[in-house]
Amino acid sequence: MDIFAKFQKDSGPIGQYKEQAHEYFAFPKLEGEISNRMMFRGKEKIVWSLNNYLGLANHPEIRKADAEAAAQWGMAYPMGARMMSGNSNYHDQLEREFAEFIGKEDVMLLNYGYQGMSSAIDSLLSRHDVVVYDAESHACIIDGLRMHMGKRFKFNHNDVDDCAKQLERAAKLVEGTPGGILVITEGVFGMNGNQGRIADIIALKKRYDFRLFVDDAHGFGTMGEKGAGIGEEQNCTEGIDLYFSTFAKSLAGIGGFIGGNKDIIYYLRYNMRSQIFAKSLPMTMVIGGLKRMELIRTRPELKAKLWENVNKLQNGLRERGFNIGTTNTPVTPVYMESGVTDATQLVVDLRENYHIFCSMVMYPVIPKGHLILRLIPTAVHTDEDIQITLDAFSEVRNKLEKQLYPKEIPQVSNALA
Amino acid sequence: MDIFAKFQKDSGPIGQYKEQAHEYFAFPKLEGEISNRMMFRGKEKIVWSLNNYLGLANHPEIRKADAEAAAQWGMAYPMGARMMSGNSNYHDQLEREFAEFIGKEDVMLLNYGYQGMSSAIDSLLSRHDVVVYDAESHACIIDGLRMHMGKRFKFNHNDVDDCAKQLERAAKLVEGTPGGILVITEGVFGMNGNQGRIADIIALKKRYDFRLFVDDAHGFGTMGEKGAGIGEEQNCTEGIDLYFSTFAKSLAGIGGFIGGNKDIIYYLRYNMRSQIFAKSLPMTMVIGGLKRMELIRTRPELKAKLWENVNKLQNGLRERGFNIGTTNTPVTPVYMESGVTDATQLVVDLRENYHIFCSMVMYPVIPKGHLILRLIPTAVHTDEDIQITLDAFSEVRNKLEKQLYPKEIPQVSNALA
Repeated sequence: MDIFAKFQKDSGPIGQYKEQAHEYFAFPKLEGEISNRMMFRGKEKIVWSLNNYLGLANHPEIRKADAEAAAQWGMAYPMGARMMSGNSNYHDQLEREFAEFIGKEDVMLLNYGYQGMSSAIDSLLSRHDVVVYDAESHACIIDGLRMHMGKRFKFNHNDVDDCAKQLERAAKLVEGTPGGILVITEGVFGMNGNQGRIADIIALKKRYDFRLFVDDAHGFGTMGEKGAGIGEEQNCTEGIDLYFSTFAKSLAGIGGFIGGNKDIIYYLRYNMRSQIFAKSLPMTMVIGGLKRMELIRTRPELKAKLWENVNKLQNGLRERGFNIGTTNTPVTPVYMESGVTDATQLVVDLRENYHIFCSMVMYPVIPKGHLILRLIPTAVHTDEDIQITLDAFSEVRNKLEKQLYPKEIPQVSNALA
Repeated sequence: MDIFAKFQKDSGPIGQYKEQAHEYFAFPKLEGEISNRMMFRGKEKIVWSLNNYLGLANHPEIRKADAEAAAQWGMAYPMGARMMSGNSNYHDQLEREFAEFIGKEDVMLLNYGYQGMSSAIDSLLSRHDVVVYDAESHACIIDGLRMHMGKRFKFNHNDVDDCAKQLERAAKLVEGTPGGILVITEGVFGMNGNQGRIADIIALKKRYDFRLFVDDAHGFGTMGEKGAGIGEEQNCTEGIDLYFSTFAKSLAGIGGFIGGNKDIIYYLRYNMRSQIFAKSLPMTMVIGGLKRMELIRTRPELKAKLWENVNKLQNGLRERGFNIGTTNTPVTPVYMESGVTDATQLVVDLRENYHIFCSMVMYPVIPKGHLILRLIPTAVHTDEDIQITLDAFSEVRNKLEKQLYPKEIPQVSNALA
């Protein structure tokens, strides 16, 4: 049959609602400068949806650096894959600066975070190797694992005992083979805000022979004394064999990097398919990246302000009895019980009447009856933003509990063109 | 055993030579403005390694557009995945312009070409589906297929009879199942310059029920009357169900796009993992993309100049008896017989004494005894560049045939830091 026919029946978990969701719940357009307040459908909203943790996206010095870099280099430079014709002294310099900052021998820049992480995993594994990984690993990790020919064992999210159990299984499997074990987890889980239990997993190295690869997309810039991420936060940098982060969060850009010992980074440089067969990270982003690193190193007040806001927001929510789960990072999920109709009405109420824009996750992405509103506090939010948001959350919860929302899906979508 | 230990023994096909190759054969640094002449190790070279087909990378109007866009938007905008918080009217506009230009109902922008192509393939396939694909498909296609749980059948490169044979196998396999058939090939093969036999493959739709997905990375901008790619060139746009191209070649940027019927593109928008779980294409690139499209539409002289240079270079090579295979596109491979030592000496000779910088492929990437020098003519090359290159090629071939090169691998690599 026609291979496209199946999509008529199944548009996917979110796509099935595209008529109701498009340009509102999905593909909304936030307009104006990136900040705590942006325009949505012509009205100003307090925005809690952007991983602009340190406020670098619109920092005047970053904007100046980006503008000057683009004026000098444009968006085409360098052409070609890094290995073929896309290398430069600036790429090297940014790698050295990252390496020094995160405390690793060497760092390799990635042209894009998602494919970089997937492709690194792919490069490291032979069919004899076994992967042990956290059940809530990001899609880019899963896509990397889907290219793996060998076994993979999932451990329950952040469950170190289960990790040990899976390591036990893996160790038996690789014994007497040319295979080894790679453990993959995250420094900060982007949905629930949990720190990965990295130090505890590293402690398992006394019992099992494995290497540890940590995706610290949300931890770099936000965690640790100087913002060097989860290794610094948990004082376990040495035990992290490969450290990945992205430019898409604190660094406010595109691209990514991987740090580790010199030998393994050189191996990745010469073998990662998404890097040797695709274009190098644009020079404008590399130059902009150098300025971002300068600010992260020299402006501790940005991270201090982030955490001041994190604490005010999370403490305020807890004091009002909201369930924000076990987050111990800036990621702030608010867990509520709600059917799909109420959930959509609540989100529309928040946006239209309280002018609060945040991301939500509901059925069918999570089980029926649950709603997660995810708030990302940043260094550019104000006390007023936080106060308005706390008050609004109390009010919408009250309406939800008293069943005051209309019992129909709100018609808010822009008609599909 | 240690999962990293295997890399001590095997650094990969190119990595094993990194001490001899680094920053010379691999990871060279081309410096100065992107053009026909750039600096390599402090000396000007004629550069034939960049897929800057139309010369847009350094076109003053493109440079101005990129600079203005970055001044207005920076490199962070928009934050978040397109579906979550990274959508904009400009993204929509560029999609409409691409769709109109390539003659498809709808187009979806991709944050990066490589992961976009891999992820699109992944999104389209259930385990029941069977893929039939060209043996020389690009790495991003192969990586997409590696995530596929079902069968895949490779056909001999550009061999339509073998494609039909594999379709026959595939048709038997999917009969009576919920599965369908996807054929994947390329519009222009980047290594040998062959056009994919797209129209001929489409003709097979009379006998077999399949959809066709074409990666036209090298064809967009270079092929067809107006540069709309392989569909226009072979007058078979209708039969291409999904059309992919990248910004990394003619469009001189980063990112990519996929065009097709509205329904399938909406399905991809809502389901492609690399797009819904990773950051949107940067606004500066989107605005820069609009300007690139304007130039492609309104400056036919760019493509005319490209083809003038293609013809001069390829005819010149043929007249001198060089084997450039079956290329019928700008990609210009020069096939030579040479051992590894001679090949490296020849490339160094070309670079150091004739000041010609081109990419080469040799053992172990291709079989022992073979050398491919790949030339990418562009609209910015001059008659003088071509003449110098033709003369140089004749001279190095002469030295190679007379065995005049030193019988040792040249020591040209920068020591690894």
